[in-house]
Amino acid sequence: MRNDEFIDVTALGAAGILEAVREGRIGAEELVRALLARIGADEDRVRAWAFLDEGRALEQARNVDRVRREGHAMGPLHGLPVGVKDIIDTADMPTENGTVLHAGRRPMDDAAVVERLRSAGAIILGKTVTTELATYSPGKTRNPVNPEYTPGGSSSGSAAAVAAQMVPVAIGTQTNGSVIRPAAFCGVYGFKPSFGLISRHGILRQSRPLDQVGVMARSVEDLAIIAEPLMGFDARDPDTRPIARPDLHAVAMQEPPLPPAFALTRTPNWDDAEEQTRLAFDEVADMLGGHCWSFEVPALFRDTWNWHRAIMEADIARSFHHEYEEGRDRLSPSLRGQIERGRRVTAIDYNNAVDRIGAVSAAFDEVFDRADALLTVAAPGPAPHGLESTGSPDFCTLWTFAGMPAVTLPLLRAENGMPMGLQLVGRRGDDARLLRTARWLVRRVEELERDAR
Amino acid sequence: MRNDEFIDVTALGAAGILEAVREGRIGAEELVRALLARIGADEDRVRAWAFLDEGRALEQARNVDRVRREGHAMGPLHGLPVGVKDIIDTADMPTENGTVLHAGRRPMDDAAVVERLRSAGAIILGKTVTTELATYSPGKTRNPVNPEYTPGGSSSGSAAAVAAQMVPVAIGTQTNGSVIRPAAFCGVYGFKPSFGLISRHGILRQSRPLDQVGVMARSVEDLAIIAEPLMGFDARDPDTRPIARPDLHAVAMQEPPLPPAFALTRTPNWDDAEEQTRLAFDEVADMLGGHCWSFEVPALFRDTWNWHRAIMEADIARSFHHEYEEGRDRLSPSLRGQIERGRRVTAIDYNNAVDRIGAVSAAFDEVFDRADALLTVAAPGPAPHGLESTGSPDFCTLWTFAGMPAVTLPLLRAENGMPMGLQLVGRRGDDARLLRTARWLVRRVEELERDAR
Repeated sequence: MRNDEFIDVTALGAAGILEAVREGRIGAEELVRALLARIGADEDRVRAWAFLDEGRALEQARNVDRVRREGHAMGPLHGLPVGVKDIIDTADMPTENGTVLHAGRRPMDDAAVVERLRSAGAIILGKTVTTELATYSPGKTRNPVNPEYTPGGSSSGSAAAVAAQMVPVAIGTQTNGSVIRPAAFCGVYGFKPSFGLISRHGILRQSRPLDQVGVMARSVEDLAIIAEPLMGFDARDPDTRPIARPDLHAVAMQEPPLPPAFALTRTPNWDDAEEQTRLAFDEVADMLGGHCWSFEVPALFRDTWNWHRAIMEADIARSFHHEYEEGRDRLSPSLRGQIERGRRVTAIDYNNAVDRIGAVSAAFDEVFDRADALLTVAAPGPAPHGLESTGSPDFCTLWTFAGMPAVTLPLLRAENGMPMGLQLVGRRGDDARLLRTARWLVRRVEELERDAR
Repeated sequence: MRNDEFIDVTALGAAGILEAVREGRIGAEELVRALLARIGADEDRVRAWAFLDEGRALEQARNVDRVRREGHAMGPLHGLPVGVKDIIDTADMPTENGTVLHAGRRPMDDAAVVERLRSAGAIILGKTVTTELATYSPGKTRNPVNPEYTPGGSSSGSAAAVAAQMVPVAIGTQTNGSVIRPAAFCGVYGFKPSFGLISRHGILRQSRPLDQVGVMARSVEDLAIIAEPLMGFDARDPDTRPIARPDLHAVAMQEPPLPPAFALTRTPNWDDAEEQTRLAFDEVADMLGGHCWSFEVPALFRDTWNWHRAIMEADIARSFHHEYEEGRDRLSPSLRGQIERGRRVTAIDYNNAVDRIGAVSAAFDEVFDRADALLTVAAPGPAPHGLESTGSPDFCTLWTFAGMPAVTLPLLRAENGMPMGLQLVGRRGDDARLLRTARWLVRRVEELERDAR
């Protein structure tokens, strides 16, 4: 990339933007103006944004440019615009959690991840649309690949904004399938790190044992770039631990010492996947050949879905107690149903389910002695037609429950041209290796496809 | 103490024993023989022991003596005989958990605290009687001060054995009042450290958010000596933290930089204390004069007892699910009632209660800015007459719930001559200071009593 070349900055990823800003080839203000123009042109169709204040975004960009001009130290995300899911608190923008009950809500403080983004030099471009209280009832967002299709949820706006090149990276959250599913449906990369690596302080709480922060981007490298500075101990989130932060980006960019091995993983709900999904998955398996071996998750893991539901519904009933008591008529029927079921879950069933989390994650340890990653699908199929549902999270449930790191790669395509995601799952705590493996896989598939042409 | 002097080793505390063994004035074998003789003489009356194998105790003692003789390094508890509550696993002795349902149970491994005791050089003298599954239904133990009275529970045998000079120190556990109450009833010192300082791995689980390990001894110094080596991070107990171990003994033995201040604490259930208890407490307050100020725990803390019961009963129902299903006819009616109530606790009520723990503990922070310790009572009165009940834990519930460190000092006496405990409570995590304050108080009361004579 040379200075006199035309740069389509909206097509740049995080790595490209950070390099261009660092080298002074573009300024943050120019970059933000280009993204705002792109949003202006496409937002009517995509509806990714819950809140966007051009003035506020440009002001942050000018600050970042001044810091650079004055020769001050620049953070690892200096000048990078980020979309932030609208259940993540921002002190300078509303955070409405996808429900009319919280309309006009203005938090006092930034969430921990927003603090970390800002201190790394990132620009909070705006707030992206979430489903109702990050559960199942859709927001206004459409799939940018084809607006007649759902973008998935609950991090709908984050996935759609990244797919529509309105922003290079975005932050989402996942309690069941809320990062991996929308990323897969919109054809972008999504990454849900291991449970406990990213603080949830200042984020709408659904369920303490299940809530996890994730990121979306348009390459594996960009996932690593945006996720790494978010990680770290935070005394305000009791599930983060005072351990060293993984060298996510450095390791992700390394060549694996040996070609990685993949466990081709068929979960107990495999029959729920569409035939085209299973065929596309088998094709990838054939393509990878010797790098793969088949792994059928034993049927006894079927209970995981029930344990997950018991925890999630009981916690939703508790977390949204006030909303239910004060405004149940303005909650969706599906959320009301979840809350009503959740109220009946007993402490015994809840705690039995929570106790399984460690056991389920440990049960996969043996597989990881023989495989770098589990290779499976991100969803039963491509984005469903229509905007009434955000699609099924069922192919994410097991990994979310176990707190294992997962990434979705937009390497498959459905018969109707919509994207589908390959999901890679890593050993809990081994996030950097998962991204290194994912990057290898993407390049390998590209290579093989090139050879086939 | 000189070499040619007669030593009544059964009257020696931990500090005295450790010094005498270190200096070679007594051997561990001689010591254990003396304690076994004492037990032999008094066990029919007291019934403190669930399991005692003279051969096994002497074998450990001879090993300890050999290590010393051969000049090997000695641990901080070298040669110290310890009684261990019979819900704490020992690989070389049965652990029957106070129920016929577990008769003959032999664990595969030592509990974490037993590992720590052994590697510090302690001798596991035997297993002390617990109530049924460490809940409310009494075991066979009687109060050594007067065998017509209950020793309290659930760590009944640990308290009685220490009081009867059968062993200098013993390990117990507390989920409600199971260390402080029996120590107070039997007239010994008891210490329940802050939640999370001592691993519970290998101990019968009643309730993860409430179960805490404690110790009994015949002086504050001895409490510090025995508790310190038990503390420390253990990955097998998720509630221990990788933080530095407090310098419990060194700090406890220091002179406070300033005379300590006490908050004379009346809890919302103060009216449940017997009149003689309240009068004795007021006398201590008068005696301490300027070192005290009155603190009435606000009535809104009354809910704490309900939160504690919701957690404990729900967890008992879960922890003893198997015992209930397989042998409910051999459980006591009171435990059956707890389990049946516990099964009906909802996940919402349970988690709401668990969430209060931190808030309740933090609510006392302000008090600790003005006081070194809360001074209150250990129980509503002295040990009740009869052996059908272990007495009320209600004056321990608040501090156990909040995970605050508590110590009971046998400084009060009832009209019938039975001992009563003064309870000191410290800021969560400030255990060493609590013991330093407790030691100061004991000496101060002794001084004042001497002056008064």
